[in-house]
Amino acid sequence: MTLELPPIDDLNDAALAARLQHLLDNKTKPVGALGRLETLGLWLGSILGSESPALVAPQMLVCAGDHGLAARGVSAYPSDVTWQMVENFLAGGAAVSVLARQHGLALTVVDCGVRHDFAAREGLLIRKIAPGTADASLGPAMTEAQCEEAIANGMAIVRALPGNAVLLGEMGIGNSSAASMLLSRLTGQDIDGCTGAGTGLDAAGRAHKRKVLRGVLELHADANAPLAALAAFGGFEIATLVGVVLRAAEERRVIVVDGFIASAAVLVAHALRPQILQRCVAAHESAEPGHRLLLSYLGLTPLLQLDLRLGEGSGAALAWPLLESACRILREMASFESAGVSKQDTP
Amino acid sequence: MTLELPPIDDLNDAALAARLQHLLDNKTKPVGALGRLETLGLWLGSILGSESPALVAPQMLVCAGDHGLAARGVSAYPSDVTWQMVENFLAGGAAVSVLARQHGLALTVVDCGVRHDFAAREGLLIRKIAPGTADASLGPAMTEAQCEEAIANGMAIVRALPGNAVLLGEMGIGNSSAASMLLSRLTGQDIDGCTGAGTGLDAAGRAHKRKVLRGVLELHADANAPLAALAAFGGFEIATLVGVVLRAAEERRVIVVDGFIASAAVLVAHALRPQILQRCVAAHESAEPGHRLLLSYLGLTPLLQLDLRLGEGSGAALAWPLLESACRILREMASFESAGVSKQDTP
Repeated sequence: MTLELPPIDDLNDAALAARLQHLLDNKTKPVGALGRLETLGLWLGSILGSESPALVAPQMLVCAGDHGLAARGVSAYPSDVTWQMVENFLAGGAAVSVLARQHGLALTVVDCGVRHDFAAREGLLIRKIAPGTADASLGPAMTEAQCEEAIANGMAIVRALPGNAVLLGEMGIGNSSAASMLLSRLTGQDIDGCTGAGTGLDAAGRAHKRKVLRGVLELHADANAPLAALAAFGGFEIATLVGVVLRAAEERRVIVVDGFIASAAVLVAHALRPQILQRCVAAHESAEPGHRLLLSYLGLTPLLQLDLRLGEGSGAALAWPLLESACRILREMASFESAGVSKQDTP
Repeated sequence: MTLELPPIDDLNDAALAARLQHLLDNKTKPVGALGRLETLGLWLGSILGSESPALVAPQMLVCAGDHGLAARGVSAYPSDVTWQMVENFLAGGAAVSVLARQHGLALTVVDCGVRHDFAAREGLLIRKIAPGTADASLGPAMTEAQCEEAIANGMAIVRALPGNAVLLGEMGIGNSSAASMLLSRLTGQDIDGCTGAGTGLDAAGRAHKRKVLRGVLELHADANAPLAALAAFGGFEIATLVGVVLRAAEERRVIVVDGFIASAAVLVAHALRPQILQRCVAAHESAEPGHRLLLSYLGLTPLLQLDLRLGEGSGAALAWPLLESACRILREMASFESAGVSKQDTP
């Protein structure tokens, strides 16, 4: 293997965590009254190594790729929707475009392997490994070299971006199948529970999808190591996101995880470098049933539960203001002392 | 009774709702894939009577008042914290100050009956009925006339404010006790389940609080009508918020409900004019146990579940960007047709 994975240090600054907790406990509110916002503030302060954390130049990365397995009828939409939605992201009309605009998130779309030739333009990075992965029901979706190249692309993309936070988005018709298979293989759970409606299959469609995925898992019964599983099931956008997560974690950026597919990339990155999890915030829990299993396996608690099942990074964008709020609470709220407010009588 | 309650019309424009649903279904995403954000968009469009709803000049109203019952040891904090926190709101150091600033919410603090004389200044409305309610364990917290005056104040405040959305905030040491008693009395649930730790009572404190509240409920066993219960249990800030809700609903403003105490005001307003609920969005479900019962009784589903228990309007402010997002989705997202994206094959 030519790919060199970055070293990722442990975030274990207990003194900083204690100072952050002390700050939170002395803000003008009952201890703990801001609930998960306080936990989030402590977490963000620890990642950014600061008692007054500030999120700077957040980057929404929407990684797109096509899947050869889509030819097997595992999605409710045709593969052409992948490139059409990339155009929509860039034109500003997709959900993630609207939400990124609302929250001042820089939006970069990455062609990791879409079956389409895009005209170059601002906001689009062409990091195409191939026009779609191979059909995983016939052989591995990617070669080992392709898989490593995609991961290296993801790492290089992050290296070149400013700021201290990345939000993970994706687009790829067929990629909930890849995510389901990665979840099943890397956590040992049966594929049926890991498989959902994706973009909107009916009951018969879901049954067909489960059957196809079970067959693909059997075909690649030996693909147990994280990178072998990733190569077997795909896709290019997931592998690129694995690289994004690894490099962002190495650089101590805050990583905002979106839905099922982005979380599958986190699952693979976690299998390679467990410390990446210390930098991850789960934005939401998707309506796609595998997502709950995946978050639970990783021990991540989602901020939002809004029955989203769109991907694109839309859930990460929706959760973004909560991260901002958590930082502002630490930076801007008065303490009991500074505001002259009486404290609770110690019992 | 001299108070005249406003008439509130039914929002039953089925044609508008159908047009909104059609718009949402044709946005570039699988049908329903934005989950609760879509429901919220439909709701906001219906309240504002528009297929392209826009939230304008949102007003955070923090109504403050003191409670005579606080002398009975029902809160972990002394009554002085009410006026001290009002000063903190105005100085910009409280949680709701920070969050309102983040989201561009105009913040107005209303002295509905705080036991303190404030210097006049921008952002503060003095609508003081009395320096705190009477001790409800000895007699009614407010007279009928005081209760009506506070409601009238709330209605007049909203009338004078710009914009089409109000967010309900409050402050008042002892007011979770009033909210618990209103919940118990108006919904027929036992007071024990309606009572929690408030600002942070320990187990012994909670047991004492429950005992005190049970006694107050017995003392006012005849106070069953909504306004009679409100007068019996208080407080001035809750009564003012009842007026805010009634007038805002009449004017078809969006009403963003915060935690347990703000929801208790909605409960009273709903008992007077059930149609107000059609304008209410529940921002979050508080960690205060009565809040879940109250929201469930009203049939409101909270947007956030972050274990908040602070009040002030902090949860309403945190949920605000989701309302903005829901409107922007309707206004700014492309349709399949306009973006040239293929639709799902109809099964």
